[in-house]
This record gives sequence, structure tokens and C-alpha cells, in this order.
Amino acid sequence: MAIEHPYLLFLGDAPDQLAAKTAQGIAHWRPEWCLGQIRLKGCNADLGLTEMTLTKAVAAGARTLVVGVANRGGVISHDWIDILEKALIMGLDLAAGLHGRLADVPSLAAVAEQHGRHLFDVRHPTRGFQVGTGENRPGKRLLTVGTDCSVGKMYASLAIEKEMRARGMKVDFRATGQSGILIAGNGISVDAVVADFISGAIEWLAPANDPDHWDVIEGQGSLFHASYAGVSMGLLHGAQADALVLCHEPTRTHMRGLPDYPLPGLKDCLEANLEAARLTNPGVSAVGVAVNTSQMPDGGSGALLRSIEDELGLPAVDPFKSGAAPIVDRLA
Amino acid sequence: MAIEHPYLLFLGDAPDQLAAKTAQGIAHWRPEWCLGQIRLKGCNADLGLTEMTLTKAVAAGARTLVVGVANRGGVISHDWIDILEKALIMGLDLAAGLHGRLADVPSLAAVAEQHGRHLFDVRHPTRGFQVGTGENRPGKRLLTVGTDCSVGKMYASLAIEKEMRARGMKVDFRATGQSGILIAGNGISVDAVVADFISGAIEWLAPANDPDHWDVIEGQGSLFHASYAGVSMGLLHGAQADALVLCHEPTRTHMRGLPDYPLPGLKDCLEANLEAARLTNPGVSAVGVAVNTSQMPDGGSGALLRSIEDELGLPAVDPFKSGAAPIVDRLA
Repeated sequence: MAIEHPYLLFLGDAPDQLAAKTAQGIAHWRPEWCLGQIRLKGCNADLGLTEMTLTKAVAAGARTLVVGVANRGGVISHDWIDILEKALIMGLDLAAGLHGRLADVPSLAAVAEQHGRHLFDVRHPTRGFQVGTGENRPGKRLLTVGTDCSVGKMYASLAIEKEMRARGMKVDFRATGQSGILIAGNGISVDAVVADFISGAIEWLAPANDPDHWDVIEGQGSLFHASYAGVSMGLLHGAQADALVLCHEPTRTHMRGLPDYPLPGLKDCLEANLEAARLTNPGVSAVGVAVNTSQMPDGGSGALLRSIEDELGLPAVDPFKSGAAPIVDRLA
Repeated sequence: MAIEHPYLLFLGDAPDQLAAKTAQGIAHWRPEWCLGQIRLKGCNADLGLTEMTLTKAVAAGARTLVVGVANRGGVISHDWIDILEKALIMGLDLAAGLHGRLADVPSLAAVAEQHGRHLFDVRHPTRGFQVGTGENRPGKRLLTVGTDCSVGKMYASLAIEKEMRARGMKVDFRATGQSGILIAGNGISVDAVVADFISGAIEWLAPANDPDHWDVIEGQGSLFHASYAGVSMGLLHGAQADALVLCHEPTRTHMRGLPDYPLPGLKDCLEANLEAARLTNPGVSAVGVAVNTSQMPDGGSGALLRSIEDELGLPAVDPFKSGAAPIVDRLA
């Protein structure tokens, strides 16, 4: 079941812009879905969207209020309940990607039930999946893989989808994490799936399709991350990827959350991913490297991108800054 | 919380010996915990244990009735409820490793509550886990890995534990599947854990220990199984294995449940496992190959074991038939 748009983005009492990162991603990648923003007193985040009351948003056709703010602990704040209840009463669905569930707030569950509205807790899968079959299915698939967690796999995937769409190619972005799901309107938070069904969930997410259709699948974690590699492995196998894009954040000094673990070399990382991906698609190949240069000093990234291109023989781009055209060229 | 022994093994209405495979494994590996068996009319399985009524079993000191029979669909059969209820009333706990839960049968849940007894549904983890940290911890660990699912990893692990115990080594078998948990009295059904916590669950299962203590960890799935490799990968990383034992079933013509997938070569499979294991323990090494020759014609296995030893330079044994001494020699 897809989350209906247009969205009204709720920024709550976000102490700073970073706390509204989820809303920012939605506004960046799906501007046409975002009617406006609604904020509580003391909110220090601003997406530059039209400021809207619930009444105005409903009148403008909004379908879902999206909680685009995260707080420490990822809970549904008491201070938000009043406005969330009102939104339900006025006919909006609610969607959130926090650890805490909208559906676990008794008053929200009751009001949603009473008014026939939906609560989307996108971090928590609400359906079961089958065990993966590994059976070859028609359609093409691209998967973003990473040297580490949080290196820009979602942004790279969305930039690639955008470029393919601009060229008139048949393409869908397939979301595997909470921000991606809010951006796509559907998807699976794959790290919350029961371990036995990781690859099966991805087979479901990116099913058989037209031979010239591409699913661009958002990767998660890294084969080299000691906490999450199981998720990354199941994702690789379920994706049956034809094309891999390696994502990297060059200023990272160690694996995220693991101070004793250095990052893998780009070449080793790419080869390990290709090797694992060949199990379910022997024809897989690498088509590019997406480098998140946002933390680099201005002017330093050009030389880095050229050196990566030389090392791997693949186009290397920062897709957020300059798009993904050189990578998409490789898919033609 | 451990399942208390001694056990009374319930074989129900098992149509044949295979349906009581779980009970057979318990009786084989923990004979000292098994007081007797109890069967319903029409049961065609027989473990050769003392036939016991509930009254007799309780008088003999039984603590837990273990459902050691599986039926199609893995449900708690209606025909079993009466005897399971009586067992609770008479002071026994219940343990089962089926998909269906004892705790989901309202009458069993009510009677257990009323009489202060425990229901152990060992296929379903009842606790949460932390994300894996990858932090090095003291103690030694051996993990069984496989070319495929269901090739004898649990039996190999138990044979290795038995041999180590016989030599006076400090050792614990760490169970990761339902049969293993019933044999060990505790453990984690790792394929039922939420994907994000696979390696964290194994870190919890095989924690820091004395420097000369060995955990022998039951592996699951295979890095080369398109359905389950994510579980196997997380298990490898969480185990921080010092020693790997490769398990193999030589008559398998394709990966279990996947007719289009051939088995990997032993050398490739072992190397891929070592490569992945090095992430969390760079000192890991292979110490042997456990070959399940039960499906081979008599007399054919000796030559096979010798050829595997020649190919890999490791001891190759059928641990069920001849024990695991040559493998344990390598751990000294």
C-alpha cells in the first residue's frame, strides 16, 4: 500500500536543520509532492516551503502529513500528538520513519481507526515475506553498494533514477530504508525484516518487469561492516543486480560506529560485491562510483574523482553535486 | 533462560521415524537428559527409550516435556493439546521448535500461566538484541560453515564439542537453530532474528570467556545459498571465529530448494568463508572438513574423504560415523 501524496511536511520542534534531514530529502527529491511545511513554536529548521496550517494544507489537497523530523531516541514526541490527532481528524494520513510507532500511541491509533485514516510506520514492515527463490526474473536492476553505511547510497540511487527518467528510460526507485520509503511512497525497511527473508523481501520489492525496465535499488550497509553485512549480502542476492554502483565517503576515518575498523579499499570492496552478486546474476558488472564529497574542502574533489576513475576504470561522480549522467551512459 | 532437564520426549502421532528427527537428535546427543519417551496411539516412531506416562516421568524427576515431532506445516496439532495441558498441570514445562507456537494456543497459555510453568517456543526469539559491535572479545570460537543448508553443521558441531569435552577442554556448544536449542537447552534461532541484529545476536550467544575456552557455534545456511546467505554472513561476523570447519553433503545435486543452483566447490566455498570471517578475526583458519556420508553407498566414503584431504590439506571426517578427533587435534 503506497503512501498517498501530496505531502504536508511536519518539522515539529526540530532544534536544527539536521534534525529535519528526512523532510529535507523528501523536499529535494520529490518537490512536486510537497505542498508545504508545518512547524511548531521553537522549530529551527526551515525547508523554504510554503508555511501551511492544517486547514490550508487540506484545502490545497494534501493527503498525508509526513513526520520529517527525528529526535534523540526516535520516539513520537508528546508535543506532536495534538497536531497529529488534528491532522487525522481533518482527513490526512500520517507517515513516519521513527523507531517509535505512530500506531503505538493509543490516541493516534484510536483517532485513525475512528476516522478511517492510515498510519504508516515505514521503519516497521507490516507484511510477511517469502524465502528468496533466486529464480531469474525479467527486467534490469541496478543496486547501490557501499564501502560503509551512510555514505550516500540513497542519494546516488535517486540521482540515477532522475537521470534515467530525464532520458525517457523506464525506471523505478526501490526504497529499502525509512527516508527512501517516504520519498518513494512505498518500499521495505529491509534491516527490520526477519533474517530468513532478507533476499525474499528484495525479490518482492523489485519483481519481474519489462525487459527494458530498470529498478534502481537503494543499498544498505556494507559487506565490510561488521554489524550489518548480513543485510547487505541478502540484499545483493535478492536484487539479482545487472549493474552495481559503488558508493563512498572519502573523509570517513573508520567504519561508522566501529572505531577499530578501517574502511576497505575501493577495489577490494567492489570486487567482493561483484563476487557475491554473481551468485544470483553471473552477468553483473560495475557501472560507476558515486562519491559523496560534501565533507571535502572545496576544490579537492576533482582530483579525487579522477584518481578513482583511473584506479577502477569506471566513471566517478558526486551525483548530488553534478548528477549521474556518466553512470547512466554506461547502462545504455 | 535455559530449558530445564531431564526431558520427557513427546513423539506424538509421528507417522514415521523421520517425523521424530528432533527427538532423535536430542536422544543421540543428550542421552543423559532423556528420561523416556511418550507416544500417542498410532505413533510409528520409536527412540528405544523407556516408555513413560506423565505420572511416571514426573515421579522420575522430569522437568520439561519436549515436543520432538514435526508435522506438515509445523503446527501444534489439536491431538496433542490434551497431553500437553496435563503435562503443565503436573508441573512440567513445555518446549517445542515448530513454526506454530505453544504460546499461541490459548488453553496452553492459560494453563501455563495458572500453574506457573514455562512455554519455550525455541524457533521464536523472545528477547531483543543489540547491533553487533565487532569488538574483539576473549575466548576461542569455532564455527561450522557449509556448502549448503542441512548438510550436518549441527551434528558436526556436537561431535566436535563431545570430543573436546572428552579431552577435558573447556567447551560449550552454541545453538543457532531449533533442534540445536533443544539439545543445548538454550540458544538463538538466528534466522528468526531481525536482520539488523544477526551479528549482534551471535555476539550475545558466544560472549567473552576464558582465553582457553572454546565456543563451538552451530552454523546456518551457506554463503552460497541465494535464500539464506545474509544469515550465514552475519553469523560469520558475529562469531569472530578462530577456527572454521567446512561441512558438506557429497550427494547433493543442487542447493537445497534451489534446483537451478549447483553446489560451490569446496575450495571456493572455504576461501569465501575465510575471507568474510577475516573481517572480524584476521587470525581465522580452517581446521577441517566434516562430510555427511549418510547418503553414500557403503564403502565409497573413504576414497572421498582422502581426496578432500588431498585437495584442501585439512582433515576430512564423517563426524557422525567416526567422531571429530582429527579436527580437534588441530585446535590444540
